[in-house]
Amino acid sequence: MFLDKLNWRYATKKMDPSKPVSEENVAKIVEAIRMAPSSSGTQPYNVFVVSNPEVRAQLSEAAFGQQQLVDGSHVIVFAAWDNYTEERISSIVDVHVDVRGGERKPVNDYYDGLRGKLLPRDPEVNFEHAARQAYIGLGFGLAAAAELGVDTTPMEGFIPEKVDEILGLAELGLKSAVILTIGTRDAENDWLLPQKKVRRSVESFVTKID
Amino acid sequence: MFLDKLNWRYATKKMDPSKPVSEENVAKIVEAIRMAPSSSGTQPYNVFVVSNPEVRAQLSEAAFGQQQLVDGSHVIVFAAWDNYTEERISSIVDVHVDVRGGERKPVNDYYDGLRGKLLPRDPEVNFEHAARQAYIGLGFGLAAAAELGVDTTPMEGFIPEKVDEILGLAELGLKSAVILTIGTRDAENDWLLPQKKVRRSVESFVTKID
Repeated sequence: MFLDKLNWRYATKKMDPSKPVSEENVAKIVEAIRMAPSSSGTQPYNVFVVSNPEVRAQLSEAAFGQQQLVDGSHVIVFAAWDNYTEERISSIVDVHVDVRGGERKPVNDYYDGLRGKLLPRDPEVNFEHAARQAYIGLGFGLAAAAELGVDTTPMEGFIPEKVDEILGLAELGLKSAVILTIGTRDAENDWLLPQKKVRRSVESFVTKID
Repeated sequence: MFLDKLNWRYATKKMDPSKPVSEENVAKIVEAIRMAPSSSGTQPYNVFVVSNPEVRAQLSEAAFGQQQLVDGSHVIVFAAWDNYTEERISSIVDVHVDVRGGERKPVNDYYDGLRGKLLPRDPEVNFEHAARQAYIGLGFGLAAAAELGVDTTPMEGFIPEKVDEILGLAELGLKSAVILTIGTRDAENDWLLPQKKVRRSVESFVTKID
């Protein structure tokens, strides 16, 4: 149960390199991300699942030396579309028609509304919108991992341009948005594990309008 | 299990107003959101849980008449901080010290790094950063609801300024980022329910670097 793991999970600071996460569990986490909802079903990001140790070492360098990228076993980089384009929206229409069958025209017409809204916008605004969708995927990935008893560290502390370069994202029209490192906690050596989880109180966080 | 519900959940288009969601389940969903991780533990957003029918009708108007806001039983508005301020970062330090005890100085010193990064930035950049954190919370809320068998509709299709006005967010230094409507599917009358879920293929969505 995910709901039973809300306190079990934490942003793991020290991972045990001798305990890699199984490919089966990584696949389940990635599948949860793929199934996450997104604005008008656009799924405007790709995920890069890096197990290669050399590439993870490079990512660690781009992330101010954060060691979980090396000591964990898998790193998921969420790379958001750098813009919405006619080609990309058309590809979404293709996926709809492939999955549901039927005629292309009504689906395409539906997405005309989206074209009208997204295509004239500044690329930076569109990237931010795409990045937000990636964060829903991040939430799903974190929830799936917690349910499976797999440790994770969500990370924003990296130099996006360096990560983009390591993975060759610019050529693909992508920009790194956020990273999810997957591994196994080194329970004896993680300073954060014994600490109480810090959250704002319900009173400060929630306003009810009944 | 959340992972068993990835296909069960969908963005419900027609909700049954005769089947409100229990306060107990809503509280569990809100708790999952409150426990979601955020950048440096900032939790830079508040949630407004609206069950009041008049306010939900106003929100529906601000959301181009989307009927789920009225036919569902609860609406969660994610309202992100409009900026990071010294007062807000100081309040995060307070929460840390309250929960974990100990001296304020080392915690406060740690957050000096964050002050240096966030306080000089453009408010719009900071709001976008805060909104991304709210989307992790959205992911946790969606996952929790799915696990509980509660239906939801995540919504970006609303006029933020109108929602801000309805809830009086500007005075609180908040701006609406995204909405999660909670209710029960009207299985017989929801056109979307019988449709196959559309997602990009694994091949198109995932790149493995082994």
